[in-house]
Amino acid sequence: MLSKQLIKKKVYEALDEDLRYGDITTELVVSPLARGAGTIYAREAGVIAGLPLAEQVFYTLDESLDCHRLVDEGEHVDAGRAVMQISGPLRSLLSGERAALNFLQRLSGIATLTADWVKALEGFPARLTDTRKTSPGQRVLEKYAVAVGGGVNHRFSLDSGILIKDNHIFAAGGIAAAIKLVRDAGPFVWRIEVEVTDLKELREALEAGAEIIMLDNMDLPLIREAVRITARRALLEASGNITLERLREVAAAGVDYISSGALTHSYRSLNLSLLLE
Amino acid sequence: MLSKQLIKKKVYEALDEDLRYGDITTELVVSPLARGAGTIYAREAGVIAGLPLAEQVFYTLDESLDCHRLVDEGEHVDAGRAVMQISGPLRSLLSGERAALNFLQRLSGIATLTADWVKALEGFPARLTDTRKTSPGQRVLEKYAVAVGGGVNHRFSLDSGILIKDNHIFAAGGIAAAIKLVRDAGPFVWRIEVEVTDLKELREALEAGAEIIMLDNMDLPLIREAVRITARRALLEASGNITLERLREVAAAGVDYISSGALTHSYRSLNLSLLLE
Amino acid sequence: MLSKQLIKKKVYEALDEDLRYGDITTELVVSPLARGAGTIYAREAGVIAGLPLAEQVFYTLDESLDCHRLVDEGEHVDAGRAVMQISGPLRSLLSGERAALNFLQRLSGIATLTADWVKALEGFPARLTDTRKTSPGQRVLEKYAVAVGGGVNHRFSLDSGILIKDNHIFAAGGIAAAIKLVRDAGPFVWRIEVEVTDLKELREALEAGAEIIMLDNMDLPLIREAVRITARRALLEASGNITLERLREVAAAGVDYISSGALTHSYRSLNLSLLLE
Amino acid sequence: MLSKQLIKKKVYEALDEDLRYGDITTELVVSPLARGAGTIYAREAGVIAGLPLAEQVFYTLDESLDCHRLVDEGEHVDAGRAVMQISGPLRSLLSGERAALNFLQRLSGIATLTADWVKALEGFPARLTDTRKTSPGQRVLEKYAVAVGGGVNHRFSLDSGILIKDNHIFAAGGIAAAIKLVRDAGPFVWRIEVEVTDLKELREALEAGAEIIMLDNMDLPLIREAVRITARRALLEASGNITLERLREVAAAGVDYISSGALTHSYRSLNLSLLLE
Amino acid sequence: MLSKQLIKKKVYEALDEDLRYGDITTELVVSPLARGAGTIYAREAGVIAGLPLAEQVFYTLDESLDCHRLVDEGEHVDAGRAVMQISGPLRSLLSGERAALNFLQRLSGIATLTADWVKALEGFPARLTDTRKTSPGQRVLEKYAVAVGGGVNHRFSLDSGILIKDNHIFAAGGIAAAIKLVRDAGPFVWRIEVEVTDLKELREALEAGAEIIMLDNMDLPLIREAVRITARRALLEASGNITLERLREVAAAGVDYISSGALTHSYRSLNLSLLLE
Amino acid sequence: MLSKQLIKKKVYEALDEDLRYGDITTELVVSPLARGAGTIYAREAGVIAGLPLAEQVFYTLDESLDCHRLVDEGEHVDAGRAVMQISGPLRSLLSGERAALNFLQRLSGIATLTADWVKALEGFPARLTDTRKTSPGQRVLEKYAVAVGGGVNHRFSLDSGILIKDNHIFAAGGIAAAIKLVRDAGPFVWRIEVEVTDLKELREALEAGAEIIMLDNMDLPLIREAVRITARRALLEASGNITLERLREVAAAGVDYISSGALTHSYRSLNLSLLLE
Repeated sequence: MLSKQLIKKKVYEALDEDLRYGDITTELVVSPLARGAGTIYAREAGVIAGLPLAEQVFYTLDESLDCHRLVDEGEHVDAGRAVMQISGPLRSLLSGERAALNFLQRLSGIATLTADWVKALEGFPARLTDTRKTSPGQRVLEKYAVAVGGGVNHRFSLDSGILIKDNHIFAAGGIAAAIKLVRDAGPFVWRIEVEVTDLKELREALEAGAEIIMLDNMDLPLIREAVRITARRALLEASGNITLERLREVAAAGVDYISSGALTHSYRSLNLSLLLE
Repeated sequence: MLSKQLIKKKVYEALDEDLRYGDITTELVVSPLARGAGTIYAREAGVIAGLPLAEQVFYTLDESLDCHRLVDEGEHVDAGRAVMQISGPLRSLLSGERAALNFLQRLSGIATLTADWVKALEGFPARLTDTRKTSPGQRVLEKYAVAVGGGVNHRFSLDSGILIKDNHIFAAGGIAAAIKLVRDAGPFVWRIEVEVTDLKELREALEAGAEIIMLDNMDLPLIREAVRITARRALLEASGNITLERLREVAAAGVDYISSGALTHSYRSLNLSLLLE
Repeated sequence: MLSKQLIKKKVYEALDEDLRYGDITTELVVSPLARGAGTIYAREAGVIAGLPLAEQVFYTLDESLDCHRLVDEGEHVDAGRAVMQISGPLRSLLSGERAALNFLQRLSGIATLTADWVKALEGFPARLTDTRKTSPGQRVLEKYAVAVGGGVNHRFSLDSGILIKDNHIFAAGGIAAAIKLVRDAGPFVWRIEVEVTDLKELREALEAGAEIIMLDNMDLPLIREAVRITARRALLEASGNITLERLREVAAAGVDYISSGALTHSYRSLNLSLLLE
Repeated sequence: MLSKQLIKKKVYEALDEDLRYGDITTELVVSPLARGAGTIYAREAGVIAGLPLAEQVFYTLDESLDCHRLVDEGEHVDAGRAVMQISGPLRSLLSGERAALNFLQRLSGIATLTADWVKALEGFPARLTDTRKTSPGQRVLEKYAVAVGGGVNHRFSLDSGILIKDNHIFAAGGIAAAIKLVRDAGPFVWRIEVEVTDLKELREALEAGAEIIMLDNMDLPLIREAVRITARRALLEASGNITLERLREVAAAGVDYISSGALTHSYRSLNLSLLLE
Repeated sequence: MLSKQLIKKKVYEALDEDLRYGDITTELVVSPLARGAGTIYAREAGVIAGLPLAEQVFYTLDESLDCHRLVDEGEHVDAGRAVMQISGPLRSLLSGERAALNFLQRLSGIATLTADWVKALEGFPARLTDTRKTSPGQRVLEKYAVAVGGGVNHRFSLDSGILIKDNHIFAAGGIAAAIKLVRDAGPFVWRIEVEVTDLKELREALEAGAEIIMLDNMDLPLIREAVRITARRALLEASGNITLERLREVAAAGVDYISSGALTHSYRSLNLSLLLE
Repeated sequence: MLSKQLIKKKVYEALDEDLRYGDITTELVVSPLARGAGTIYAREAGVIAGLPLAEQVFYTLDESLDCHRLVDEGEHVDAGRAVMQISGPLRSLLSGERAALNFLQRLSGIATLTADWVKALEGFPARLTDTRKTSPGQRVLEKYAVAVGGGVNHRFSLDSGILIKDNHIFAAGGIAAAIKLVRDAGPFVWRIEVEVTDLKELREALEAGAEIIMLDNMDLPLIREAVRITARRALLEASGNITLERLREVAAAGVDYISSGALTHSYRSLNLSLLLE
């Protein structure tokens, strides 16, 4: 998901934001000849995501910096674990520190939260998935972190998947009508997903051939009934008010996917820091 | 802070990410002639920030949409309050919903957290300030939300302020040497800020003429001693491990500014949703 | 598919290419006060596509130009039919002529070719679909023209759909293995398509649960046999060496989709011209 | 014509279009350690153009890929000829295949068509030239392909040459007036070209000092008469309805240049494919 | 030359440079409701150029600002003359002041210098022309200002004209060889210009059919001899060390064009200022 | 100040302007195999600035070119001194010549003028500083050249410093009110600068706690009085009508900074040229 040109673009934007005209303090105080080495440490346990971006920050600033990964992308680390070493011109190392950590801490925060929830799903077939509730301009990075943490991705955008929601249904005059419009003229490589809020809509969606059905904000008894009615004729995605506490219950109800916006809109950055030697 | 061209650029990026090739489902299902109206509601109490971005999302998609603010930018709202109305072509309204909410929920989340902390500081002269620990590409928006929430902004970037940190001091061979380098050749419109970790460094910084001194990760007794020693010869900024609980104690110690990365790296999005009529 | 910001971007690129520094001849020769009116005529029969782009060319050059459509997007026109009228400052009208026609003639050429082939499929359930064999940078416009001409779109890009080809199968160690990898970790909103070259691979793909199977370069008897074996357990897409002549035979064999790169890589521009009054 | 930064930009656009968020199928199915080698073959005879772009596609995706040309840019190849070899990480090779071929097939298609027509002109002094009827955003690549095929380029854009057309003449109040306006104030490094539709206009243009005269849509007898009247006082360009059949007749009439939009708006992509070993 | 999209782009760049994150002082101090009006005055005599850019600065910042030209583009003004009035929201007026003046003062400076030199040429047929010695990124604006001041433009760039210099001649093995290479394969819509340093080269260039000959750094007697030898068979451009003092002498020698880099690399900004009422 | 990504961006813009579609003459005339070497010489004495940009021009065009600095950035050179050598493919060397010199001559011109003025200040504590009167899009490069020449930089932009001017004061209802607004809500890392025009305003600014006071267009006696009144309670910046002649007198009056727009808006390019061997 993180193509080379995407990584370069996102890093360019971050550096343009932080030091378009350079790191003035560092340039005034540190000799261009000074060299140094630093290590990024985890100050709490978590799953590391974003190493390719952190590396690219340093390489974009200075091709002569040397980055050395000490853990794998996606690896779970304990507090105190050394994550990456960087060495070379001290100026460049200092200038890149914050931008590199900003990527790494956020993506690791998402991967860690996702991994915690995925762990809670152990023993159930249900998979954890994400939403479009992401930071503007950072969606693919955040969805990548969900995947690193063990989740599966929902559609990336309004132009990479079909999801028929209540307002679409209303505008089309019903679920069957909406599905027909999509099936007749839409890109056929995507499954047709429909959002339903009650069992009547569920039955309509099944009858009309929906391949994925999102159960929106249903309570547990309703979800269980939906699973029974569906009888594997479509994939079921439970959505709305998912918390770590509810997760296992929803999974136990038998759905195929559980989606949560919190994975990307309300995570906490992982505590990482760069120490110079 | 949110110049018109910046708002347009950030909104463009968000829309390019979400619907570069359009909102396929909506285009297949909803008639181009259908019209609609929707209201963004607060589903929990908080401070609203980001209205100009939400409006621009809709206007960029469709100049004929009509947005109407029901609260002011920066206003504290209770749960259930209507925040903004949008009306016009239904297609455009549906296509912009997620992008508008993504801006509004995140910035309101930051403003709400900031306002909570600022409230905790009532009665103290200390001001709450932010850091460079922001989402890549979204820094100015996030710092704007801090300001909306009642905080004051620290520097925007490495090229808009001077902050001499431990590694700079080490590289320069001491605090006095570092300050001299900056004063001799740096842009003179910025105050010189130095980060210190103990009272010896504090005294050196004061002697060398630092105008702002960041007390890095000091405990309360040390902060109090620092305030006493400084005796208003410089502005003092307390930094590191700031939590809502510690906030008042640190303020009571007498510092001028308290900075926290959590305002922008570990906030929770405010729960808002758009309902169609 | 043609979001407003996409149309503006593509038109900007075209104008930047053709008149970055202006239309020198026109500026030297035509008074800024001169006004004029022109009509775009079809000089041969065909299906019109690209009107929103042609209009945007003129509006980007000069907001005071006035464009008036005389046919609908997607309408079949006979030779001699007036397609669009433009009036206003003569300079802007002349400067935009070529860029507007370049969009309109190409997209109408694709829509016309597609419509011809779609017509040939009348009476069969098979649908015509496109490929990724498009002009660099123009893919979404060209796929839009296919849709205007009555075709349905295949995936837009490598990041908006799953298509497992021979080399993927070889790398994964077999069809079942490749499908399992995709199903376990891929975005679940996309159908899984597999390309097969013989009936053994077809059976493997069916068994492994492929939802779309591309029959690559099969002859008619083989296609017929594939349809029989598949028995509606998956959607079948015939691909390779599709010509107008073979189209009905392939459709008669019972496949669901017929894809052709020629729709976008070997079409002829529709003959249109702008006449001034 | 293909400066390094232009090649990089055009390739970036093509890759951003095809795999902004990566090649999902390949990333799911192919190991990052797998290596491979492939060869691009010509499946029909033609003139190869676009090798620098195809190479850049692979290098942009992965600097560790190795490209090796087996023919020269502009070389005529027979069906079955190996054109380029690429080896290295299999993922990158697969991800770049389509984008590389899209450039190479289209430009080779233009170069092949141009070369066929240039061959038809053998024995005549007349040169084949192109127009501004090119794919939006791809003009310089397409004009480059015309040059590779043996044609000479007309102006690149409205801001790189002077061409006075009928509407300019009308607006200026005559050919002499239009030429005078251009000569007085225009960039003097460009020849002044005027489009004429009959012999009266031709004489006016000659008298007024036009250096190139475009004979627009004239039939053969008229062209011959124009050549006679002009008597080498200006360069003559025949334009309009040029087909391979008419080409030699028009050349035999004695014009200096023959221009054709079909070279870039109605060519067929050359059939090339990439085979993995 | 100043197409609408170019003006917008250049103004966007200038504003992004000056107030990407807004005009902090103004936003803190001036009420968003405050309104104001200002007038740009000439504080010295000169020729005004750049009004469309100055206007666009204000319109980009705030569509509700109102600009009113008090002089025409290209008009000569005396010291004290009011040039443009702007009225509307005070914040926007203050924020745009510097960016608008930066465009206007520089372009007016170039136009004024050019006009002075053009005036010195009165009575001679020789025309004043520019070079590629322009500010990076500002070339077309600066060449536009030369045209406004009464000069004619030389080529805009290396890709919009032919100029064979000494190193080209050396590489080609002589003037005739170089011209032949250009004539055989180059875009035929451009005149062929050759730079010569002595009369031997001049004769070679004439014989080979050069259409413009640049006399590089020749002294007056040599220029006069060159004019005599050329006898109107080519256009002559005198170049090198042109000063206002030498200008008339060189013109009197009979050349057609006199080029000077000083017009764009060593002009002085015109003194203009914006006064608020 | 010149971060790597900034240098690349500015060079890209310059090359896109000069040879987007290549250096047509050179490509037609010079063999791709030809190699060459050239030296940039100073044709007059001055201070060299811009070497990193000149190098990047050549490296962007052709990674195989080899640049070798013969003087240091900021070094004062006499007329005739060799500044930089470039060797490698002749085509690339010729194509980059003008773009490289355009950067180098302008920045060296600014650095030279600055250094002359700085020299005039020898013996005085006053420092020379710049303004925002820079070429659109080139500000950071020009401010960098001022720093190379020995000046210190004022704020870069409206969003990197506080400067309260007369209109701000008027809008706020007085100096004290304006300063209070800034101090209460503005970024606290910047010193507060106020522009005053007479001694009454000076006293108000001092009383309100201004840290830098700009004495706008004051005559010498007034400046001397201002210095006396201020008594080192704030930094003083003299501004307006600064010429080399007045410089020492103003410095002798005792101000801390002297600012001049002329450094960047009315300098003369340094005469440099590239000679091929």
